[in-house]
Amino acid sequence: MAQTLGRLAEAVGGTLQNADPECVITGVATLQHAGAGDIGFLANAGYRKYLQDSRASAVILSPDDAAGYPGAAIVSSNPYSSYARAAALIFPAAPALQGVHASASVAADSTVDASAWIGPQCVVEAGAEIQAGVQLAAGCFIGASSVIGANSVLSANVVICHDVSIGERVKVAAGAVIGADGFGLANEDGRWINVPQLGSVRIGNDVDIGANTTIDRGALEDTVLEEGVRLDNQIQVAHNVHIGAHTAIAGCVGISGSAKIGRHCMIGGGSGIVGHLEITDHVIITGMTMVTKSIDKPGVYSSGVPAQENDTWNRNYARFRQLDKLARKILSIEKLFAAGRQPEDR
Amino acid sequence: MAQTLGRLAEAVGGTLQNADPECVITGVATLQHAGAGDIGFLANAGYRKYLQDSRASAVILSPDDAAGYPGAAIVSSNPYSSYARAAALIFPAAPALQGVHASASVAADSTVDASAWIGPQCVVEAGAEIQAGVQLAAGCFIGASSVIGANSVLSANVVICHDVSIGERVKVAAGAVIGADGFGLANEDGRWINVPQLGSVRIGNDVDIGANTTIDRGALEDTVLEEGVRLDNQIQVAHNVHIGAHTAIAGCVGISGSAKIGRHCMIGGGSGIVGHLEITDHVIITGMTMVTKSIDKPGVYSSGVPAQENDTWNRNYARFRQLDKLARKILSIEKLFAAGRQPEDR
Amino acid sequence: MAQTLGRLAEAVGGTLQNADPECVITGVATLQHAGAGDIGFLANAGYRKYLQDSRASAVILSPDDAAGYPGAAIVSSNPYSSYARAAALIFPAAPALQGVHASASVAADSTVDASAWIGPQCVVEAGAEIQAGVQLAAGCFIGASSVIGANSVLSANVVICHDVSIGERVKVAAGAVIGADGFGLANEDGRWINVPQLGSVRIGNDVDIGANTTIDRGALEDTVLEEGVRLDNQIQVAHNVHIGAHTAIAGCVGISGSAKIGRHCMIGGGSGIVGHLEITDHVIITGMTMVTKSIDKPGVYSSGVPAQENDTWNRNYARFRQLDKLARKILSIEKLFAAGRQPEDR
Repeated sequence: MAQTLGRLAEAVGGTLQNADPECVITGVATLQHAGAGDIGFLANAGYRKYLQDSRASAVILSPDDAAGYPGAAIVSSNPYSSYARAAALIFPAAPALQGVHASASVAADSTVDASAWIGPQCVVEAGAEIQAGVQLAAGCFIGASSVIGANSVLSANVVICHDVSIGERVKVAAGAVIGADGFGLANEDGRWINVPQLGSVRIGNDVDIGANTTIDRGALEDTVLEEGVRLDNQIQVAHNVHIGAHTAIAGCVGISGSAKIGRHCMIGGGSGIVGHLEITDHVIITGMTMVTKSIDKPGVYSSGVPAQENDTWNRNYARFRQLDKLARKILSIEKLFAAGRQPEDR
Repeated sequence: MAQTLGRLAEAVGGTLQNADPECVITGVATLQHAGAGDIGFLANAGYRKYLQDSRASAVILSPDDAAGYPGAAIVSSNPYSSYARAAALIFPAAPALQGVHASASVAADSTVDASAWIGPQCVVEAGAEIQAGVQLAAGCFIGASSVIGANSVLSANVVICHDVSIGERVKVAAGAVIGADGFGLANEDGRWINVPQLGSVRIGNDVDIGANTTIDRGALEDTVLEEGVRLDNQIQVAHNVHIGAHTAIAGCVGISGSAKIGRHCMIGGGSGIVGHLEITDHVIITGMTMVTKSIDKPGVYSSGVPAQENDTWNRNYARFRQLDKLARKILSIEKLFAAGRQPEDR
Repeated sequence: MAQTLGRLAEAVGGTLQNADPECVITGVATLQHAGAGDIGFLANAGYRKYLQDSRASAVILSPDDAAGYPGAAIVSSNPYSSYARAAALIFPAAPALQGVHASASVAADSTVDASAWIGPQCVVEAGAEIQAGVQLAAGCFIGASSVIGANSVLSANVVICHDVSIGERVKVAAGAVIGADGFGLANEDGRWINVPQLGSVRIGNDVDIGANTTIDRGALEDTVLEEGVRLDNQIQVAHNVHIGAHTAIAGCVGISGSAKIGRHCMIGGGSGIVGHLEITDHVIITGMTMVTKSIDKPGVYSSGVPAQENDTWNRNYARFRQLDKLARKILSIEKLFAAGRQPEDR
């Protein structure tokens, strides 16, 4: 949907520089690949080199990058979010559908708002409530007595188990499973018996959940994601985990049972969080890190091990296997030094 | 379903202490949140502090914790499994359904026991056998000639590929895929050709499989899970893996081809098991560990790296990159000491 | 489908040794378990010990292994690929189906070739194109305007989102999701807003994609897998990743946004690739490695940490936490030695 620069600047809260407010923008592109009619943006210093030669009709820039820039620009204190808002205006989401596809299977005693859409092959079980404007793509399953909040959008083949509560404007990507039984086991003479998982899952408003991510229901109380949380794909959230508002978690992270993660945290891909610990607000965990203890101080934490050439790695790791012994040698040498002695004096 | 304390004590194999056997229990709860009518339990020393003030109508306790406890208790040598059994009595599983939903697609030459339930949008292919009491939730796919053993329960959107054998009382959570082709590749002048995956998967009785977990079929022989195995969510089990009875594996574990894991093992979340190795019985692998060699001695094994503050981590890892060189320095200094020499003597 | 040895040798490009070309082969098996009528193979030196006693009717061997072998053999310079080709002849894929199952939901303005098969409960949306010979197993979803190339095979419950392009002879295992929105977020005063994901996914010819693997659509340009790529199960491919031709990636790998991986690479299970980096052709990454920087030299790279007994591991890791301090001690001792001094001289 074409937009004028003037309309875009106003909508994203930026100001025009060297720009005709009536100039029509029809697309978005990277600085390198933009052409006439496109708006670009500069949010990462690594791409600054492409600015001067970009053929974009306009560029969204920070005040610093805009200073002295001779081309048309929208100046914004947050170019990346301004770009996101501009792109959403130029490429609005597909219009919402309404109704129930003939192939869907909807229980008689469920509640489906007339403005919601139940796609082909969907299943809505007894007592479920599908609120206004909800969009269920094909093949979704909504278990008994679950509630899908207004204007939430579920992609294809999403599974929401029974008694789960999903907030408003929640987005769930394809293949995600919310509300499966937690991994609660008691051992009885070497055999496992299952501990009934009697809690549920509560997802706050404006949460996004990635493809094939799994969020288990609680054992006694609920698993909770507060508002605005962002989960990438293939994340595993175990029973009774609590994730604070506006925390973002990258792909392939595993979070063990009853871990409590604060607000405004960022967790890098492939990380693992041990159960029954607490991470305070504003903590950043870098990729492939294992968190084994509570973290009560905001900051950046790491244990992901960067790659080396294999033979160097093997040599270093061989020494690591003996690191405690090596350390004892050092301390013993140091002690000898401190005593002014040499080994033959012993 | 309300239960008297007397009935619960008998069912879980415990004894009453300070308790009225006619007292009616209608719920379960943690010690902190329990109220009148609830039964609680103490299985983790970390929660002992909540015992004295708990308002639970009764608590399941070990003999040690029960000693001197003035409230109503069921005394059990295994409070956690007793709790699991009590909870299952108070909150029994949903009653089994029977029949075939009108929207399901069931091949004419498949066998579906009259006491089984085939949910909406399910597909049962030719030659498949669905035994007595099986419950297929919505959207399940049962491939040609597969067998689902009596009283097994598959949640929504589970995929069982062709010729797979599932035991009795098996639970499969939503989105799991059992019997996809293994990752068998032969390289021919730089291009991969697929090695036909001609084996299958055999799942024993009383196995539980988590949401979005994948278990590949064997290349020539079968991938096997023995009875009582517990797999959490998002586990990847490659072709020809063999998992011994009563082993429990936490989420996000990857097991490479032809690995053989013993009985009564426990494998922590995010761990990886290299292929073509063997792990004996009663081995515990802690979280995010990589097992690269066979383990022939029961015990606990680890290589998961705990997080540090990022700047400390970076400093330590920078030294690790040089660890072999550092180790050589230590050994050379040690040698000089042993010889009673100092460097300038060289 | 029974084959004569002569036909097999010709088909796999091998030569017969001590063999009757009219001998009929009806099965394939490992050397240990083969019986009359089976063909075996030896591609891994670890199994050489089983060769002499094997009861296979014939064995596929390298020239070295065939030298002096008294039994019937097909001699091949690449026994494993020859085996793969032989097995595919003896056990051909199930014959292709044609038509549209009555329970499928196919949009009126989609294009489905008459030779394709749309299985039960599938959904094909508006504008999608299903080319000749395509096989969609049950429950697949093909989003609006996506193209599935000729003779591609999708297993049950695969999700292809809108506007995705899948090449010819592509195999997608059950539960995979291709084309979900990438994890593009802009932060605005502590809240995340979504960056529209306007690119798509392009999958080349002859690619295989594993069960429950996820491949996100690009933000502005496309996520691309070139021809012949092999992805195992539960892999996460983020937006704008580019994977070069004939690269093979094992299970549970996570690849962050805009990473570019070369051709003919092999990436071990559980590895993580950081975003916005480039890996050249012919790179091998061993299991559970984290790649944090671009790799411009072919070779083998590692950082997966092998398990140790837990108490040894804990002792070594405790020293690692202090490694920078230990290293400083070493360097300071070394300096003292070099100066010919002892600590008390300071």
